[in-house]
Amino acid sequence: MSYNSFGHALRMTTWGESHGPALGAVVDGCPPGLALSEADIQPYLDARRPAQSRFTTQRREPDEVRILSGVFEGRTTGTPISLMIDNVDQRSKDYSEVARAYRPGHADYAYEAKYGFRDYRGGGRSSARETAARVAAGAVARLVIPEVAILARVVEIGGDRAEGFDPDEVARNPFFCADADAARRWEALVDEARLAGSSLGAVVECVATGVPPGWGAPIYAKLDAELAHAMMGINAVKAVEIGDGFAAARLSGEENADRMRPGEENGDSPQFLANHAGGVAGGISTGQPVVVRVAFKPTSSILTPVETIDRDGNAAEIMTRGRHDPCVGIRGAPVVEAMMALVLADQKLLHRAQCG
Amino acid sequence: MSYNSFGHALRMTTWGESHGPALGAVVDGCPPGLALSEADIQPYLDARRPAQSRFTTQRREPDEVRILSGVFEGRTTGTPISLMIDNVDQRSKDYSEVARAYRPGHADYAYEAKYGFRDYRGGGRSSARETAARVAAGAVARLVIPEVAILARVVEIGGDRAEGFDPDEVARNPFFCADADAARRWEALVDEARLAGSSLGAVVECVATGVPPGWGAPIYAKLDAELAHAMMGINAVKAVEIGDGFAAARLSGEENADRMRPGEENGDSPQFLANHAGGVAGGISTGQPVVVRVAFKPTSSILTPVETIDRDGNAAEIMTRGRHDPCVGIRGAPVVEAMMALVLADQKLLHRAQCG
Amino acid sequence: MSYNSFGHALRMTTWGESHGPALGAVVDGCPPGLALSEADIQPYLDARRPAQSRFTTQRREPDEVRILSGVFEGRTTGTPISLMIDNVDQRSKDYSEVARAYRPGHADYAYEAKYGFRDYRGGGRSSARETAARVAAGAVARLVIPEVAILARVVEIGGDRAEGFDPDEVARNPFFCADADAARRWEALVDEARLAGSSLGAVVECVATGVPPGWGAPIYAKLDAELAHAMMGINAVKAVEIGDGFAAARLSGEENADRMRPGEENGDSPQFLANHAGGVAGGISTGQPVVVRVAFKPTSSILTPVETIDRDGNAAEIMTRGRHDPCVGIRGAPVVEAMMALVLADQKLLHRAQCG
Amino acid sequence: MSYNSFGHALRMTTWGESHGPALGAVVDGCPPGLALSEADIQPYLDARRPAQSRFTTQRREPDEVRILSGVFEGRTTGTPISLMIDNVDQRSKDYSEVARAYRPGHADYAYEAKYGFRDYRGGGRSSARETAARVAAGAVARLVIPEVAILARVVEIGGDRAEGFDPDEVARNPFFCADADAARRWEALVDEARLAGSSLGAVVECVATGVPPGWGAPIYAKLDAELAHAMMGINAVKAVEIGDGFAAARLSGEENADRMRPGEENGDSPQFLANHAGGVAGGISTGQPVVVRVAFKPTSSILTPVETIDRDGNAAEIMTRGRHDPCVGIRGAPVVEAMMALVLADQKLLHRAQCG
Repeated sequence: MSYNSFGHALRMTTWGESHGPALGAVVDGCPPGLALSEADIQPYLDARRPAQSRFTTQRREPDEVRILSGVFEGRTTGTPISLMIDNVDQRSKDYSEVARAYRPGHADYAYEAKYGFRDYRGGGRSSARETAARVAAGAVARLVIPEVAILARVVEIGGDRAEGFDPDEVARNPFFCADADAARRWEALVDEARLAGSSLGAVVECVATGVPPGWGAPIYAKLDAELAHAMMGINAVKAVEIGDGFAAARLSGEENADRMRPGEENGDSPQFLANHAGGVAGGISTGQPVVVRVAFKPTSSILTPVETIDRDGNAAEIMTRGRHDPCVGIRGAPVVEAMMALVLADQKLLHRAQCG
Repeated sequence: MSYNSFGHALRMTTWGESHGPALGAVVDGCPPGLALSEADIQPYLDARRPAQSRFTTQRREPDEVRILSGVFEGRTTGTPISLMIDNVDQRSKDYSEVARAYRPGHADYAYEAKYGFRDYRGGGRSSARETAARVAAGAVARLVIPEVAILARVVEIGGDRAEGFDPDEVARNPFFCADADAARRWEALVDEARLAGSSLGAVVECVATGVPPGWGAPIYAKLDAELAHAMMGINAVKAVEIGDGFAAARLSGEENADRMRPGEENGDSPQFLANHAGGVAGGISTGQPVVVRVAFKPTSSILTPVETIDRDGNAAEIMTRGRHDPCVGIRGAPVVEAMMALVLADQKLLHRAQCG
Repeated sequence: MSYNSFGHALRMTTWGESHGPALGAVVDGCPPGLALSEADIQPYLDARRPAQSRFTTQRREPDEVRILSGVFEGRTTGTPISLMIDNVDQRSKDYSEVARAYRPGHADYAYEAKYGFRDYRGGGRSSARETAARVAAGAVARLVIPEVAILARVVEIGGDRAEGFDPDEVARNPFFCADADAARRWEALVDEARLAGSSLGAVVECVATGVPPGWGAPIYAKLDAELAHAMMGINAVKAVEIGDGFAAARLSGEENADRMRPGEENGDSPQFLANHAGGVAGGISTGQPVVVRVAFKPTSSILTPVETIDRDGNAAEIMTRGRHDPCVGIRGAPVVEAMMALVLADQKLLHRAQCG
Repeated sequence: MSYNSFGHALRMTTWGESHGPALGAVVDGCPPGLALSEADIQPYLDARRPAQSRFTTQRREPDEVRILSGVFEGRTTGTPISLMIDNVDQRSKDYSEVARAYRPGHADYAYEAKYGFRDYRGGGRSSARETAARVAAGAVARLVIPEVAILARVVEIGGDRAEGFDPDEVARNPFFCADADAARRWEALVDEARLAGSSLGAVVECVATGVPPGWGAPIYAKLDAELAHAMMGINAVKAVEIGDGFAAARLSGEENADRMRPGEENGDSPQFLANHAGGVAGGISTGQPVVVRVAFKPTSSILTPVETIDRDGNAAEIMTRGRHDPCVGIRGAPVVEAMMALVLADQKLLHRAQCG
């Protein structure tokens, strides 16, 4: 019931606001004896780091992580790992407008309805900056599942879908896109939105290979339910699919059944002739790649004035000045990877608890 | 970390297999003093009950619920409410084929990979029969949130989308469909699949009205994340959307922002000019209707033979005899409603815990 | 945060009232493949069963357990195990007095302050009858830890302490006492209290041998903290000691240190020259016997009239008629054993989750 | 199942080692709108701070707390409150002896059995330094329960019991002792142990007044079970009593029943003529003072050489050099207070969740 913790056997608790002094994650339950230093985490933070291209926010944060506990002589001790990232570029600005009125599409009104007031500087706790803590924790989770490879990529921006798939391409363009052609098209698309003071949505697909059969649980700790929870909990996410997702609802039972054949050699794992299920059946992994697709809404912060009300209930207009991602889904890709890693590592440990 | 429990402040634990003597739910954390008898639960079980039309499985289960604890003199006492439903129509049949080989699309292989063996009678714990326990528990949850009205309806079967919306129509046809025309079309569609020994998928939409602003939490206990977890945990569900869902990824920031206007009278809640967000912003309810859409894959049990392997890894063919829903998504509607009620009731209590 | 659940990786949820139709436990997270039938559980329930001597309540309950789920072909499947025990001898009596006024020493006033009203029949949920569900669940937990032997015995009744220790004696007398002389003395002591309409307290000591070093966790999931929680949660328990307990506070550091010597053979576990720590250091098991001591207050139900107030706040007198244990601590011994088994089994699985 | 988190509705997660750069706590679930600054926390840390007299360790730690998140414009926002305390005086010393052999009475052997290796500098995570994080979190918890006053005091050191009770005296002597005479005697007692390189145990009693009736829950979330868990989880604690504790096991039922009389005025709370129960009945508060007694073993670090084994299993001798508390129970008093505050605040929120 902890509001800011995630996971069961491997559990992270995150803290911090957009404009506070720092943010962080405490990772608990990590197996002991794993080699861990800041160098294992930093590359993932660098991938998510803002201001690396004109297609993301220009807030300049080094996002340097420090490990404050849980590691001794270069190895995890089994005690909580405290990760901290300083906020550096909280540009001083005038927040009086945001303090006074609610930005539609943002959490402003909902926060205030819940808590009675809100930290309005840069969105406070509702800022996507919190996801830096997840990415750091996700890097630790990856160490728990060395058998698994995870790749997230943006497959659609503003309704324009990428078709090609070259995994090496993902790191070569600023969009985490596996299709060089689409990446080129998206440059123009995102530029246009950015210059118009508008914003775009995106779809991210994440595939985890190497997950053995048997992770997950039949009912409320289903692997797919945990993934849905993890992904829908990312800022700006509005939809989650496993495997074929909504398209599965349009298949017949025969089309949807992932037929099985014996493995090539005696003792090999079975072969599946398709993966409509996205690697999960009955809440438990099947040994096929685990496939998740996640929809990000367009960034709520836009330069166009929008009708709203102020804190006294009067009609007002507001427009969000300041630095923002024109398409928050782009930087969502490393966050989706981190959440995938956290869920899988947790499920590995849970499986080990019950089934040895 | 309990594998078969759901919820935090209001928590249900379910148990039971398709072909065991009974199944049930224990609901813990229910506020005291609520009027509760079997008559408050039975109508929801009746809505989900099989064999009420030729479009669902012909297994005949009265699904009569008994309250074994937690109620005294007609009111909840605040102690756990144990709900039990006897299994009556576990038709004796020959399970040797299912015992020997894995049914593609089913959880057979995954269960066995996890646990080393499985209860193969009717799918055991992975059977959709478990959802009867959720529906019973959901009926209790509804008492906790009298301010909320919940309506789930099937909006698409086999790719055929319902367009009209007459809420009264939902109870009038065997498809939980709010569009009489679509319901008529679906009769033919489902009949065709049924007679062909095939099956169909479906999409269910669920709307909760009356949810006040402020339920939910910013990060990992987000209202939308909890809903995604709840819905993805239902058997056969492969995708979940909140509000516009995937369509939101194709909107611009201006289109997606749900503009706000003052309420009509001084002191009224604000008016929203749209509800792309589906009633949730930053993980917290906004006071608008909470809208969830859920995709059900086609029933995995089909009468067509499918390639598979047996427990020894040899190639085999299997076809699922016995009684099954030609479209399991139809009876998913009452289950989606129950999960919505459970999440909202839980969030109401969690909100009360923190914010009084 | 579930109010009626216990444990983490192995988790039981209990339900039921003293005078409801039944009570039960749902055990979740049990490893699959363990041989389990009612015959594995019944002996422990029989040990706790009332009315086996004149020294316990004369309520006659067969306490026959039924397994309703989670077992297939004689083995646990890994899904929740639902255990149910019917209430048979809820003698109809006049509860108007208990309904009207609060019994001092009982939970009557506290329940009503919390919930606004209470199930006054036989104490409702606060009845020690709930412990039957724990004993049943504890029997399942024992199967998870075959390497561990657990023995609880009453070491003190009404201030009269047993000195001798013959483990075989425990099952031979109605007091779970390892000292035949003390058992004889206690016959007179308990008879006297019973005939006087009074009641006595008791101290139970429980020792678990075979616990390997390494179970537990350093901070809030400490093995000793979990044991303290488990034991203090038993009805009528007012104190818990680990190892020397309060006596440790009177030792010097030199006396208290459990010196270590090499094991006899190369590769053997180390030898400890003492066990003041009761088998736990820093929250983690040391490989020595785990020793817990638990104080039970005298049964609150007594035949002597006591000053109290009624529900309207007026002065009154009350005396508890009906059948009661003159010393509830006696039947506490099997319950303490069950809680020890549940904690250790849970810790074994938790340890396996983190450390493999 | 989080190993380093505590609480349910109000939850703290602590991290940090004795000789790492810092330690801290993340407090989640705190109600919004409470006035909070470092000044509300520092006095409690100062009370626990070492090196304030010759009777505690001479490690000089300013223990200055910083609030890194969750507070905006001087008030709690409802988001996680991250508290951090730098370690300043980790004196560089030679740890090769402790690294090589296990200190009896310490967690050295148990940690290594669990995790395969250990951070041996100053005890790592098993150091009582972790309790600084609890004290900081406890100060936040106090703000949640302004209706409650908490006072812990040392009532016994080395078997010498304090008799008098002057609450104002507690802050006047270095022993948190309410009896000036005892405090004087203890000066000599602790000096003697300190100079002999020995150590002493202690008993701390903590009383919380102002707790309304109704906090707690009947079964596994019992207020007394939660308190037992909280207290037994403090370093060096070996026993916990509620109310009369072990002495209750020696009372008759008549003696033990806390008789009730009407309140003085109409509408007043009832009067209890005694408080053997320590303010808890059936796991729920009665409105009387909540009374807990806690036994601390003597500090395990002593200057006397003790038989032990080394990491290779060979016989060895070890003696703990360095700075240590001659009686760790003394500084336990502020920690016991903090844990009491954390439990009560959590229970208040849990009660509000269920009962409004």
